[in-house]
Amino acid sequence: MRVSVLLSVLLGAALALPAALPAQDLRQSVETYVGATQKEILSKLMAALRFPAVAADEVNIRRKARYLRDELAQRGLISEILETNGNPLVYGNLSVPGASRTLLLYCHYDGQPVDPAKWRQADPFQPVMMDGQLSHDSQLIDFESAESFDDDWRIYARSASDDTAPIIGLLTALDALKAAGIPLSSNIKVILDGEEEDGSPSLVAAIERYRDRLDADLLLIFDGPLHQSDRPTVVFGARGIMAVDLTVFGPWAPLHSGHYGNWAPNPAMQLAQLLASMKDAEGRVLLEGFYDGIEFTPDDQRVLDAVPDNLEKLKTVLGFSQPDRVGNSLQEAIQYPSLNIRGLESGWVGAEARTIVPGRAIAAIDIRLVKETKPDDIYAKLITHIERQGFHIVAEDPDDVVRAEHGRIVKVIRRGSMNAYRTDLNNPLARRVVAAINAVWDGPIVQKRTSGGTVPIAPFIEALDIPALGIPTVNFDNNQHGPDENVRLGHFFDSIVTFAAIFTM
Amino acid sequence: MRVSVLLSVLLGAALALPAALPAQDLRQSVETYVGATQKEILSKLMAALRFPAVAADEVNIRRKARYLRDELAQRGLISEILETNGNPLVYGNLSVPGASRTLLLYCHYDGQPVDPAKWRQADPFQPVMMDGQLSHDSQLIDFESAESFDDDWRIYARSASDDTAPIIGLLTALDALKAAGIPLSSNIKVILDGEEEDGSPSLVAAIERYRDRLDADLLLIFDGPLHQSDRPTVVFGARGIMAVDLTVFGPWAPLHSGHYGNWAPNPAMQLAQLLASMKDAEGRVLLEGFYDGIEFTPDDQRVLDAVPDNLEKLKTVLGFSQPDRVGNSLQEAIQYPSLNIRGLESGWVGAEARTIVPGRAIAAIDIRLVKETKPDDIYAKLITHIERQGFHIVAEDPDDVVRAEHGRIVKVIRRGSMNAYRTDLNNPLARRVVAAINAVWDGPIVQKRTSGGTVPIAPFIEALDIPALGIPTVNFDNNQHGPDENVRLGHFFDSIVTFAAIFTM
Repeated sequence: MRVSVLLSVLLGAALALPAALPAQDLRQSVETYVGATQKEILSKLMAALRFPAVAADEVNIRRKARYLRDELAQRGLISEILETNGNPLVYGNLSVPGASRTLLLYCHYDGQPVDPAKWRQADPFQPVMMDGQLSHDSQLIDFESAESFDDDWRIYARSASDDTAPIIGLLTALDALKAAGIPLSSNIKVILDGEEEDGSPSLVAAIERYRDRLDADLLLIFDGPLHQSDRPTVVFGARGIMAVDLTVFGPWAPLHSGHYGNWAPNPAMQLAQLLASMKDAEGRVLLEGFYDGIEFTPDDQRVLDAVPDNLEKLKTVLGFSQPDRVGNSLQEAIQYPSLNIRGLESGWVGAEARTIVPGRAIAAIDIRLVKETKPDDIYAKLITHIERQGFHIVAEDPDDVVRAEHGRIVKVIRRGSMNAYRTDLNNPLARRVVAAINAVWDGPIVQKRTSGGTVPIAPFIEALDIPALGIPTVNFDNNQHGPDENVRLGHFFDSIVTFAAIFTM
Repeated sequence: MRVSVLLSVLLGAALALPAALPAQDLRQSVETYVGATQKEILSKLMAALRFPAVAADEVNIRRKARYLRDELAQRGLISEILETNGNPLVYGNLSVPGASRTLLLYCHYDGQPVDPAKWRQADPFQPVMMDGQLSHDSQLIDFESAESFDDDWRIYARSASDDTAPIIGLLTALDALKAAGIPLSSNIKVILDGEEEDGSPSLVAAIERYRDRLDADLLLIFDGPLHQSDRPTVVFGARGIMAVDLTVFGPWAPLHSGHYGNWAPNPAMQLAQLLASMKDAEGRVLLEGFYDGIEFTPDDQRVLDAVPDNLEKLKTVLGFSQPDRVGNSLQEAIQYPSLNIRGLESGWVGAEARTIVPGRAIAAIDIRLVKETKPDDIYAKLITHIERQGFHIVAEDPDDVVRAEHGRIVKVIRRGSMNAYRTDLNNPLARRVVAAINAVWDGPIVQKRTSGGTVPIAPFIEALDIPALGIPTVNFDNNQHGPDENVRLGHFFDSIVTFAAIFTM
């Protein structure tokens, strides 16, 4: 029994739940449909990319929202625009006869703001197709005259991969299944966010207003790139975040380091000593209880070990040889909360340097949270640690009285925080998704117990209180958030297969 | 015997060398002269302030140089312009019949550059007289119609106190002595620097060219403000300086702190740990042998203890309550070398903060040197300490090979250094100067064994290889180097008495 559970975890096999159709037949059906309608599908994707839909552009956001609502309606979904405190949500609902479960699919239809001067194409909202990655050798494809489309070709446009391709991909998966006469096994609800790149500020509040429409058994987030190995990927969680600013105070104003050096206390040194006290030489956090409650089951461990990270190559590419030793691998490391100095500032360096004892020294810190670590608790541990280092903690810059009474003074400002989320690796519905993707691609997929970064959808997941999985599909080198964002056609085509497998699992 | 030496040190009394004239008679003679010619003296000072003589302004520097050469000549000095690699020196030589020693007087005739927009007056090179410190209440004095001049009045102009007033002061002291028929006891040589505010880059090289003209028994530096207590002040030395930049390297470029935090090494944390290792919690440097060779004789200790620093008030004004514990007082602290973090920079803080593991972290350090500590030796100790912390030291940014081979990498760049200088407290000629000033002002003067800051004249002193003393005379609140530089008239008038006492000691 134990062995079979382990095998099922490792291979992502569903437990005694055969797929409605042999996976390879499904794949062949969908790929046949996609092969026959490539140009039409790509036309739709490029049409959706022509809206300059950044969250701040209300007019074009609403144009794209209406366009996508109509696309949902054309596929038989009851679709509507849901108003929120900000940009509207696009909603669709497809009831499937006999389905005993409901999948809620989340994508976002807004894209990152653009700096057109940094793009190679004139207009990031006029998609162009290239015969490969942008380089001196890559050629522009004349889409109108092209008859077939190579997997290595790419479409360049803002929101191409983040996150318009998955929206068109899921619509196409519905088309492909319909064309092949393959029934869906789940009810499908679709929710498209118009503010994700702005941090989804209106999403949680919208749940109260539209809770009935959002009821589901599993939330699937169609966003993000595949693991670097390019294997199909399922993500079970994401770390949360909390930011803290520390300011240590020395003299009121910078002092002449000759007249006062050795006598006036140096806030940069005090800050260095405070920060140094927080980690050991191998990067492990020394705050008491920082890692409390974190442990891996053997199943967890096997999932972590199975991720095909090429750490030697990664270290070379990133430029270091000695990683921190929180856990024994990158995957283990991101299962733990982190404490990261993201910024330091005091006095001046380089050509601006002057011979002073600085008046203050600032460290900007981010703390990544995992499901076991709650922001309030970690913050309390941080405060305790700072106090134990002999610092007096203030919330405002100290006045004469505070300065006269305390030797070491630090202002601690807690910025916003966002919780982690993590779905149980053994959640039955999650296992079914893993099994379906695994079967359709005929090989072990990458299961990420937690991704290291923080996603603005985490509060939405928390408020919905249902299991959630990330299903990334686009190419890793998509230049997400930067200039020259793109989606590789092969990844886009494959996403249609992946989505079809989920819809019929 | 021991007691009498101590007394002489404490009181600044000369040992069995009676002044040529009772000190109070000398003072009265000079003050009578100054009182009778106030307007003429102040006119001369204001005339000298009208040259926009900043080091970069060659034309006006030379105009002021010629003006001052002529002023020296009018007082019987053999005077000339000495060309250097940069701005010229103004030189004067007065042979005194029967004098057995020669004093070399150093001042500088250039001033700091100005930012006129930050001054209250329209033109920092058009001196204005005010009836006190600049404030809403202080009134402009109509110099032309004024008959007498209050000690609290001030002249505002660039270089007023730094360092034109002492030049006019020493010329006036010669005038006063001549008018009163009081003979000088020393030959006088005057050297006026035109590049001090630019670091005196041409001064040392000029020694080789003009060594015969510069032969002397004692160098006196007429520059700088009195001790805060406003007592007459003699300075026996100044700390030197060496600057070092440390750059610790993490990944090639900033990395996403979510994806890589806990795994990618953080250079800001490594830098914090390196810096923290350099000092204990009370600010004492932990580099092995950093304080080697520094000890105070009982005479030293008494001179240090006699400086009337009001440390409680100073701490309140400066804004801290717990000074570093290198020595037991400010005066003791500056007898030791210091290691000061003058700047920190890594990633971003405040509104610019972003969630990254920084690619590098920089600390700018200055190390103040004392006579016992040589730059090469201290630098070697720093390097040893850094290596002991497990860092690989590089001189250039590391490439892939270096990054692959070493876990902790720091680039160490040594910037220019300048030695300390210190004249023996018991040097007989120095004691005679102390005694003369002490006698004319009828009270214990402040003897600073070392001033904390570094003076660009130190290499000049070293190259001349003669004892040197600083004789500061201007008010402490003169806004030296900043906008609204000024000299208080009372301090200027008193400087004439002080200089006369030295010339006749």
